[in-house]
Amino acid sequence: MAKTKKQPRPKAVTPKGFRDYFGPEVTRRQTMLAQIARIYDLYGFDALETSAVETVEALGKFLPDVDRPNEGVFAWEEDGDWLALRYDMTAPLARVAAQYRNDLPSPYRRYTMGPVWRNEKPGPGRFRQFYQCDADTVGSASMAADAEICAMLADVLEAVGIARGDYIVRVNNRKVLNGVMEVAGLGGDDKEAERGIVLRAIDKLDRLGEHGVRALLGEGRRDESGDFTKGAGLDPAAADVVLGFLSAKRESDTKTLERLKELIGDSEVGLEGISELWEICDLCYEQGYGDDRIVIDPSVVRGLGYYTGPVYEAELTFEIMDEKGRPRQFGSVAGGGRYDDLVKRFTGQEVPATGVSIGVDRLLAALTAQGRFEGAAEGPVIVTVMDRARMAEYQAMVSDLRRAGIRAELYLGNPKNFGNQMKYADKRNAPFAIIQGEDEAARDVVQIKDLKLGAKLADDLSHEEWRDQPAQFECPRADLVTEIRKRLG
Amino acid sequence: MAKTKKQPRPKAVTPKGFRDYFGPEVTRRQTMLAQIARIYDLYGFDALETSAVETVEALGKFLPDVDRPNEGVFAWEEDGDWLALRYDMTAPLARVAAQYRNDLPSPYRRYTMGPVWRNEKPGPGRFRQFYQCDADTVGSASMAADAEICAMLADVLEAVGIARGDYIVRVNNRKVLNGVMEVAGLGGDDKEAERGIVLRAIDKLDRLGEHGVRALLGEGRRDESGDFTKGAGLDPAAADVVLGFLSAKRESDTKTLERLKELIGDSEVGLEGISELWEICDLCYEQGYGDDRIVIDPSVVRGLGYYTGPVYEAELTFEIMDEKGRPRQFGSVAGGGRYDDLVKRFTGQEVPATGVSIGVDRLLAALTAQGRFEGAAEGPVIVTVMDRARMAEYQAMVSDLRRAGIRAELYLGNPKNFGNQMKYADKRNAPFAIIQGEDEAARDVVQIKDLKLGAKLADDLSHEEWRDQPAQFECPRADLVTEIRKRLG
Repeated sequence: MAKTKKQPRPKAVTPKGFRDYFGPEVTRRQTMLAQIARIYDLYGFDALETSAVETVEALGKFLPDVDRPNEGVFAWEEDGDWLALRYDMTAPLARVAAQYRNDLPSPYRRYTMGPVWRNEKPGPGRFRQFYQCDADTVGSASMAADAEICAMLADVLEAVGIARGDYIVRVNNRKVLNGVMEVAGLGGDDKEAERGIVLRAIDKLDRLGEHGVRALLGEGRRDESGDFTKGAGLDPAAADVVLGFLSAKRESDTKTLERLKELIGDSEVGLEGISELWEICDLCYEQGYGDDRIVIDPSVVRGLGYYTGPVYEAELTFEIMDEKGRPRQFGSVAGGGRYDDLVKRFTGQEVPATGVSIGVDRLLAALTAQGRFEGAAEGPVIVTVMDRARMAEYQAMVSDLRRAGIRAELYLGNPKNFGNQMKYADKRNAPFAIIQGEDEAARDVVQIKDLKLGAKLADDLSHEEWRDQPAQFECPRADLVTEIRKRLG
Repeated sequence: MAKTKKQPRPKAVTPKGFRDYFGPEVTRRQTMLAQIARIYDLYGFDALETSAVETVEALGKFLPDVDRPNEGVFAWEEDGDWLALRYDMTAPLARVAAQYRNDLPSPYRRYTMGPVWRNEKPGPGRFRQFYQCDADTVGSASMAADAEICAMLADVLEAVGIARGDYIVRVNNRKVLNGVMEVAGLGGDDKEAERGIVLRAIDKLDRLGEHGVRALLGEGRRDESGDFTKGAGLDPAAADVVLGFLSAKRESDTKTLERLKELIGDSEVGLEGISELWEICDLCYEQGYGDDRIVIDPSVVRGLGYYTGPVYEAELTFEIMDEKGRPRQFGSVAGGGRYDDLVKRFTGQEVPATGVSIGVDRLLAALTAQGRFEGAAEGPVIVTVMDRARMAEYQAMVSDLRRAGIRAELYLGNPKNFGNQMKYADKRNAPFAIIQGEDEAARDVVQIKDLKLGAKLADDLSHEEWRDQPAQFECPRADLVTEIRKRLG
């Protein structure tokens, strides 16, 4: 027989830029997604789940972000067709809205949640697969659709556990921005590139400050690494107009809107934008959302080119410590706005739509930063194995506990070394270990070891004292479930 | 300016073999996954979520099914690495168990749920993306691990709504099968191909009947299309041994195991298999699972080559009508078994493991076939728009309903045509429509239209009579929530 050549062993690694999620990392996200879905449902949104795979043609090939053209998706050829993993939830929605346009209700309110994939250089905290959780209304031109999504966003944040006062939903309108562009002399059809530069510059206000943004509005900006970003070429007076607009926020929505009106002059599109913002304000107030929760803020732009009307984002306003120990605001966890051209790509027909995307992983990080998940998740009660011949009896104990709704398991490793069983219980973060040796079996009792109390006592006391403490006690086998239930509280 | 050439419009289509899921199709599956997760958690299994993407190297390139070699995954090259979408949940588990072997508890019990992708020819009801929901115990050689998964499988089926008596978990052991192979003269190292043919033949017993299986055990079988499948080459006496084994099931587990012992002679591996089955039986009985729920059945093989010990599957035993209106049993919805070599691929070390995979979509289909989801899902209460200037007041009604936990929405389409609003309410399956025109607003009342009652009356009565029926009534605006809540029950 010919010897088969030995294959080298495959490497057990997660692909670059991807990661694995364990235990509570998974269940916390699931819980959060369910909380969000409950609110979306209450607002009349219907679930939609498209497949992870789309034709490249339907996706439009590119991320909708001008900073990263011509790449960004994982794609492959299949029987002559190019397929790709979705990079967001909006492109598949546009495809669905076009494909089923004769069957779907109009307006169509849908929510969706799931992973999206980006073929980008991974970095710290930047992964190539992450969750999005979107809600969109397709086929409504009414500002009530936008106002509703802002209100829903506030409700969602409270539902997942962000306290009122710890978040703010900020609203702006691209039409107002376009009006400002007109006033600043960037109104023409030939100025689209410059307008893009202005939008992206404004979006970086938080990060670059007024000085950096002013550079980008003018000739351009050289960053710390020496790289040069070309600016919009505005003269200082025009840059002042734009910056004046960014700082137009006043102590109330009414005052902010009045200030915007002063700045916008007689730009028709700008005035239309202001009127839409008034409408959203009214609708939110009437539903009980004051400007402590939903506020007009002219500095919000949202980077994506495709927005055409209201834009909104949810920001968490509490402070956390950054890597260098300095306090900073947590920042944006969700954003969206109105877009009209996505369905048109397929059908030629303009369909007004507005929607929001929640960054689930960032929101989880926020709750973690607030200490919401402190204290390790409770593990199962572990029934140890003292006598291999009595596995069925041990298994029956586990079964009794489970039937009472108590998370429990039998130690299934090699039971020879009892120390290993206790180490296992420790690693599982088990609250109790159940022990029944020959002696206990003869007397029909079990030993219950309170591992939390044991750990606490072990911290406080010497080993000898600890052994005499009631962190371990005996009870009749028949009382096992009652005793554990009592102690789990 | 140069004219840009018009691009043809992209086609709005789901890629071939993929599908979209709408509304209740999504939420029913989510509900079922949550029910399954609750049971898995109760049994001490921890959640794991790996990314959809793995290196082709880690996946092992191929589906583990010998019928479909050398294909079956969606793969692409990325910076010199070949990446692919996972085709099941077991290969990623093996990778994780190897990669984190120093950090994970041992035994490691994990559950996972999510889509997997198969690059196969799509067919009716066969999609290239579908859900799996797995639970595995890695690092335990104990039969208690297998028995536990069988018990858990029974609990899961009851938790999702399959009645006791409508399902059976059938258990067998590959070692017993290997013993039978020895008895039938297929024991040698050079007979692996033949053993594979026998396994796959047995697995088709349901579909081909004894006659078809006998052909596959012998020279081979020509199917209706004329295609010939090569057989295992057993002589009729040897084929009898195998077929005798398949029909060894008796009226109780005890009798079945005794019968198996008669058949197996002195095959060492066969006797070991029988002893393992005895052990599983005992452990199940002790936990309260009799052979009305978990039964030894020698005809179970599970097609996959990698199983090394106990194999099990869950079958739904109630009858449904097939496409031709003939009653047939629903069949298998979950299966699994013990495998020892998957982690070894990475580390060289054999790690005993056992686990089950639930076919979530088939299980949903079963509940649907049982009529579990009959009656369309309830839609939201629709507040109609009679007067565009009073949107904020309408929105406030919606808001009041939602605050009371009632799913509700404002009609956000063009309100000009009231008929369209009612058609929309109908399409959304709304239980009630709320109407407030100028007159009602002046009197501070609303009209509530009971759409279900209206539809019912419309079926029974003439149009004239229907108009006088109390399917529409008036109530003070302040009582809106109370009235709706009362009627929703």
